[in-house]
Amino acid sequence: MDHDLSALVREGDLRAVQMALSALHDVPAVVDELERQDAVTRAVAFRSLPKDLAVEVFEDLDPSLQSELITQLREEAGELVLALDPDDRVGMLGELPAFVARRLLDGLDADERAKTTALLGYPPDSVGRRMTPNVVSLPAGLSVGAALDRVREQEPDAETIYVLPVIGPTRRMIGVVSLRRLLVTDPMAAVTDVMREPILVHATDGQEDAARVVRDHGAVAVPVVDGEDRVLGLFTVDDAMRVLEQEESEDLARTGGAEPLSRPYLATSVLGLVRSRIVWLLILVVAAMLTVNVLDYFEDTLVQVVALALFVPFLIGTGGNAGAQAATTVVRAMAVGDARFRDLGRVVGKEVLTGFLLGIGLGCVAFVAAAAFVGTSVATVVALALIVVCTLATTAGSLTPMLARRAGVDPAVVSAPFITTFVDASGLVVYFLIARAVLGL
Amino acid sequence: MDHDLSALVREGDLRAVQMALSALHDVPAVVDELERQDAVTRAVAFRSLPKDLAVEVFEDLDPSLQSELITQLREEAGELVLALDPDDRVGMLGELPAFVARRLLDGLDADERAKTTALLGYPPDSVGRRMTPNVVSLPAGLSVGAALDRVREQEPDAETIYVLPVIGPTRRMIGVVSLRRLLVTDPMAAVTDVMREPILVHATDGQEDAARVVRDHGAVAVPVVDGEDRVLGLFTVDDAMRVLEQEESEDLARTGGAEPLSRPYLATSVLGLVRSRIVWLLILVVAAMLTVNVLDYFEDTLVQVVALALFVPFLIGTGGNAGAQAATTVVRAMAVGDARFRDLGRVVGKEVLTGFLLGIGLGCVAFVAAAAFVGTSVATVVALALIVVCTLATTAGSLTPMLARRAGVDPAVVSAPFITTFVDASGLVVYFLIARAVLGL
Repeated sequence: MDHDLSALVREGDLRAVQMALSALHDVPAVVDELERQDAVTRAVAFRSLPKDLAVEVFEDLDPSLQSELITQLREEAGELVLALDPDDRVGMLGELPAFVARRLLDGLDADERAKTTALLGYPPDSVGRRMTPNVVSLPAGLSVGAALDRVREQEPDAETIYVLPVIGPTRRMIGVVSLRRLLVTDPMAAVTDVMREPILVHATDGQEDAARVVRDHGAVAVPVVDGEDRVLGLFTVDDAMRVLEQEESEDLARTGGAEPLSRPYLATSVLGLVRSRIVWLLILVVAAMLTVNVLDYFEDTLVQVVALALFVPFLIGTGGNAGAQAATTVVRAMAVGDARFRDLGRVVGKEVLTGFLLGIGLGCVAFVAAAAFVGTSVATVVALALIVVCTLATTAGSLTPMLARRAGVDPAVVSAPFITTFVDASGLVVYFLIARAVLGL
Repeated sequence: MDHDLSALVREGDLRAVQMALSALHDVPAVVDELERQDAVTRAVAFRSLPKDLAVEVFEDLDPSLQSELITQLREEAGELVLALDPDDRVGMLGELPAFVARRLLDGLDADERAKTTALLGYPPDSVGRRMTPNVVSLPAGLSVGAALDRVREQEPDAETIYVLPVIGPTRRMIGVVSLRRLLVTDPMAAVTDVMREPILVHATDGQEDAARVVRDHGAVAVPVVDGEDRVLGLFTVDDAMRVLEQEESEDLARTGGAEPLSRPYLATSVLGLVRSRIVWLLILVVAAMLTVNVLDYFEDTLVQVVALALFVPFLIGTGGNAGAQAATTVVRAMAVGDARFRDLGRVVGKEVLTGFLLGIGLGCVAFVAAAAFVGTSVATVVALALIVVCTLATTAGSLTPMLARRAGVDPAVVSAPFITTFVDASGLVVYFLIARAVLGL
């Protein structure tokens, strides 16, 4: 986009704002542009959108920005909420202060309100919150032809019609049939003859687990059921993709030792960025004080051979890198299901050996380089310490995330930065013990 | 799974292997189980699968394991290849030695061979390699009723029938219509009246870009066209999800300073793990020698005030953490499109300020802790250095990935570990310069 939206808004040139936005070729581009603006520009620019486009754009906005917009555009809010799909509505209401949410719910008709509050009844990270209740179910007694008629009839209200749960008496799901299958089957056949075993998720299942079910089966949507297998809605592949993307963002943020941002980057204030990082940094700072203790303890050795100090950052930096490699590899292997807790022995065994081999390789290189600086005896200490530190680092890097997952903690949280700090402290102990032994101090 | 497959295979109890696998509830579970086994167990277990299940399992296996299996099961290979969809076939052939791939292509009939070699003609990471050529196109002249008949006719060969490109003369795509739309429209209407502007990708587009188009539009599939807008195939949402997942794995691996694994973790040998990491570690080791140079240069200062050495790991560890936070945040913001190169100024501005504020917060904490160890003068040095190092770290952490992307390098490659190493070296310089100034050395 060549125009600077915020400048146009400041100049009050609303026609130009409107033209700049309509020059964007599709909804994602407009969403993208709005998410990059400050709150005021976003609100003004949003108001300049034609009604239909506004609803589509609003549905795709980050929920934190949706609720911000709502409070800014209070008078129009009810109308906007009315136009949303129930699952998008829930994403937004969940972010709003309770009294605002209640007021907005009041604006809905009884049927819409029932759907929305039903979704709000499920735990915050459950798939129940993300499902669409607008599903076309087929009673078991229907013929294929009658089923197609029913689909045509209910299509205007449905989010997708490609996956159709088949329900028995008491609304219990007994199978699922795709629109594709219906279309190519003799209209006189019974629906129950063409349905297949359903892949399903429960409304209280976690969103991420449900999203992985969708991904692993390459499904367009999966039915969401309650404890008695009654159909509550559908979880669609586009929502699954969003859930997985958000999860990746969280994992990546935590791998870097920060809390995930609750809003898009450019819409996050500097104080928001500080908040997302300061707690972890403080914890890590306290942990890093361990290294001061270790060095304090070995201060005599350090005074005797100051050359040892030269290699401290080198040694712990390399150990930290080796640990981060192991941690990110193992965290990812767990995330995609390639490694489970029952593989603990195999994983740690592999990593111990990998770290040892890496240490030998790096130790040889470090020996040659260090010998040039400080002679062969300190170089021997550095090389030996590197072997132990690398082995330690890969072991800690693999063990910690697996134990964390077992203990119910997100493995990404305790990965790289924590392992680095642990390896820093224990690596220094190893370094000085080897130095005392080799140099005979 | 309670049974240990490899033990059953070693005992030669093939009936038990078969039973153990058929006890798994679905295809993803079998794939998952096979990917965790060693090569021999995998081959034997695979052979025990019933034919239909074998084809489905094979399609979902990691391509590196597919080609391994193929060479192990040579006599049956042709038959297996024949049963695969063309896009899955290409995923596998691309991994095989050329002469094996050629021999397998020979086993296909002319039509299938043409489809497969066409896909193989596109660059390795292009969406052309991942699209399915089995698409149902609708000539512009058709009525909706005739279009539905055509869909029914061609359905057995199609990968999906939910997205239907509409083509004009010379096979050029002029629009797209969903099966949903066809189903609810009067059969006498013209297809051209209900089609809409297509969201499309070009066969030579990168797989990741194409996958993001699918995700951003929440599409079930998007048409893939050549330079003249002729329809070549469809890129489906399940393939898009796999592409994005693989990209995430690569990003995460590189964030940890390792090359992505080409096979599932447990199927990767220790030497494979070493190979994926050693090059980056060696590069980082050479870079880390910079810190040795810096300390060597300031050795006199270090000898005068050994207490300074105590805080070296603390200082650079904390700087590294702050840099890693900034880098992962910015890399992610770029990956999801929240920050672009043109936002460089805003991003770096935010990060400089964030780093400065974090440095002040941490500096206060560090001052109190350090004063207890070594008195207020060295503590002042540590606190001041921490402020500069944190600012430096977040600046480098945001600038480096953005410049890397601009230079066409994957930002994840140059993120955390490189920034840490850079911050280590320059942080030490800052530390000793401040020490000399404050302590009057």
